[in-house]
Amino acid sequence: MIKKIILSGFGNVGKEFVKLLNEKKSYIKEKYDLTLVLCGILEKDGCIYEDRGLDMSYLYDCPLGSRGILKYSDFNREAFYNYPVLEGDILVECTPSNIETGGPSLNYIINSINRGMDIVMLSKGALVTNFNQLIELANKKDVKIKYSGATAAALPTLDLGTYSLAASQIKNITGILNGTTNYILNRMFEDDISFEEALQEAVEKGIAERENSMDIDGIDSASKLLILSNSLMDTTYSLEDVSITGIRDIKKQHILQAKEENKVIKLLCKAYAKDGKWMLEVTPEKIDTNSLLGNIKGSNKGILFNTDTMGEIYLIGGASNPRGAAAAALKDIINIYI
Amino acid sequence: MIKKIILSGFGNVGKEFVKLLNEKKSYIKEKYDLTLVLCGILEKDGCIYEDRGLDMSYLYDCPLGSRGILKYSDFNREAFYNYPVLEGDILVECTPSNIETGGPSLNYIINSINRGMDIVMLSKGALVTNFNQLIELANKKDVKIKYSGATAAALPTLDLGTYSLAASQIKNITGILNGTTNYILNRMFEDDISFEEALQEAVEKGIAERENSMDIDGIDSASKLLILSNSLMDTTYSLEDVSITGIRDIKKQHILQAKEENKVIKLLCKAYAKDGKWMLEVTPEKIDTNSLLGNIKGSNKGILFNTDTMGEIYLIGGASNPRGAAAAALKDIINIYI
Repeated sequence: MIKKIILSGFGNVGKEFVKLLNEKKSYIKEKYDLTLVLCGILEKDGCIYEDRGLDMSYLYDCPLGSRGILKYSDFNREAFYNYPVLEGDILVECTPSNIETGGPSLNYIINSINRGMDIVMLSKGALVTNFNQLIELANKKDVKIKYSGATAAALPTLDLGTYSLAASQIKNITGILNGTTNYILNRMFEDDISFEEALQEAVEKGIAERENSMDIDGIDSASKLLILSNSLMDTTYSLEDVSITGIRDIKKQHILQAKEENKVIKLLCKAYAKDGKWMLEVTPEKIDTNSLLGNIKGSNKGILFNTDTMGEIYLIGGASNPRGAAAAALKDIINIYI
Repeated sequence: MIKKIILSGFGNVGKEFVKLLNEKKSYIKEKYDLTLVLCGILEKDGCIYEDRGLDMSYLYDCPLGSRGILKYSDFNREAFYNYPVLEGDILVECTPSNIETGGPSLNYIINSINRGMDIVMLSKGALVTNFNQLIELANKKDVKIKYSGATAAALPTLDLGTYSLAASQIKNITGILNGTTNYILNRMFEDDISFEEALQEAVEKGIAERENSMDIDGIDSASKLLILSNSLMDTTYSLEDVSITGIRDIKKQHILQAKEENKVIKLLCKAYAKDGKWMLEVTPEKIDTNSLLGNIKGSNKGILFNTDTMGEIYLIGGASNPRGAAAAALKDIINIYI
């Protein structure tokens, strides 16, 4: 089987996806009898498209973002289009997440679905803003839509909930879904440093971005929790339905006090039923230091599914980097077609 | 879609499967548009079969094993057959695991595949003795074969390896795959009791069976590791290829010595590559007390996949009881048909 891929977004993750696709191409052909061809890349300032597949050796030399597209079109002028060419079997969505409007990805996705293309998403934006619309449209047009990379990159939270827990009922979910805040809280715990010092260190190490409010204030965690809930618990919530507290106000003394009780503060994402209604909460909470979630170190993530038939299942780890995210997209593509 | 199920084995797990199927029937119909009908049950002394589906209220009153089949046929004489009736879409295999010959399940499975039936297995026997034959036959006859319940009941080790790690390469696996031995080692660690005392306690609590050599001597762990390796690493190994040491010789002093080093002894299942060859080992080993695998308490299980693209992914927990195993079979059925 041959499948033509259109990639939207040529940032860190998009370029990593291109590299990984190239690295794994023959393995995927051999193992799954699936030939994946990258035919197009969409960026803000234009699009490159070649029906026989883009030239990987050109692409490797191209810088990130629109500059990369323009550089590629210097190599091959005929490949450049000033509008999005959606001539493929599947769209892999890697543009930066915009959780207020959905960003340009929203249009790419809707247009692709309308053309009968399957969708794999790594960006959260359109899932946060237009979840139900996208799922309904995909159902109507009978295309597949997968987005496991949008809910914790390489940690397969959605796979577990949809595939491994098929026919099980989820009683509640507790997760640590943001690596940056876990890193900061862990550093405060380990070395008794302040929130500001830990944040500074995280920025210096490239774990936090300079613009880090989405992480610190719990919005990134809440977005992932929201997508999990709408996917697994059939809620139709939006971000306003999530009660969100970030970690900005966590002081040294809170950490010390927790320590004295053999506890550690973690930014927890919780989904639980109350009076027949699903409640979604992101909140810093004290938990036992030697519990499995309490033991999650550095910028790692983890999630606990409490179920009616399979007991408690923990999923912990998964690379929090562009390569891990790209691998999640590749896995989704394969699981759509095999 | 309607699918007719034939169940082989009406023991603890088999009966639990019947109950769970009945409990989840309308949920599965509504969520997956899949109607599952239990039409037959095979046991040592005969078979009951009704084309319109067996009567659940009769079945609930039937004792386990062949006696149950005979009691059902007292209710309805026409349902009884003295040979296995394989008139269904899928065989759910729940007979006791026989890892020396494959047991009666081997014939049930081969005959079912030859009739074009899909297969879901909870028993390990035939997978340990005839893995490659079964997979090849299933491929040849174009039927699906799933057995996630055979590799750690409700802990979805195989789902993670096949589905969530699609296109990832597994560098190595480390698991605690047997709940009984973990319970014993944990009790020895917690209360400084001897192996014999801990085993006795496990038997009294129903965590270990009276006939427990398969668990204690590491054979159960090795069987699961073998199935994982043959499934995920494309090895064609048999049980003789696994280096196996059980926990029978673990003394109080070993546990105490480990404790002094902040370590705990766990019965580890390890798969790793050495000189281009996969090595499989089951062996008691000292690991850090506050590592994620070191922290697995009671009769819980866990596994660590170390991968080339997704980093380290841990899966921990899952109910170790007949209901958890039955839920794993139900999940496999759904994932075959949706």
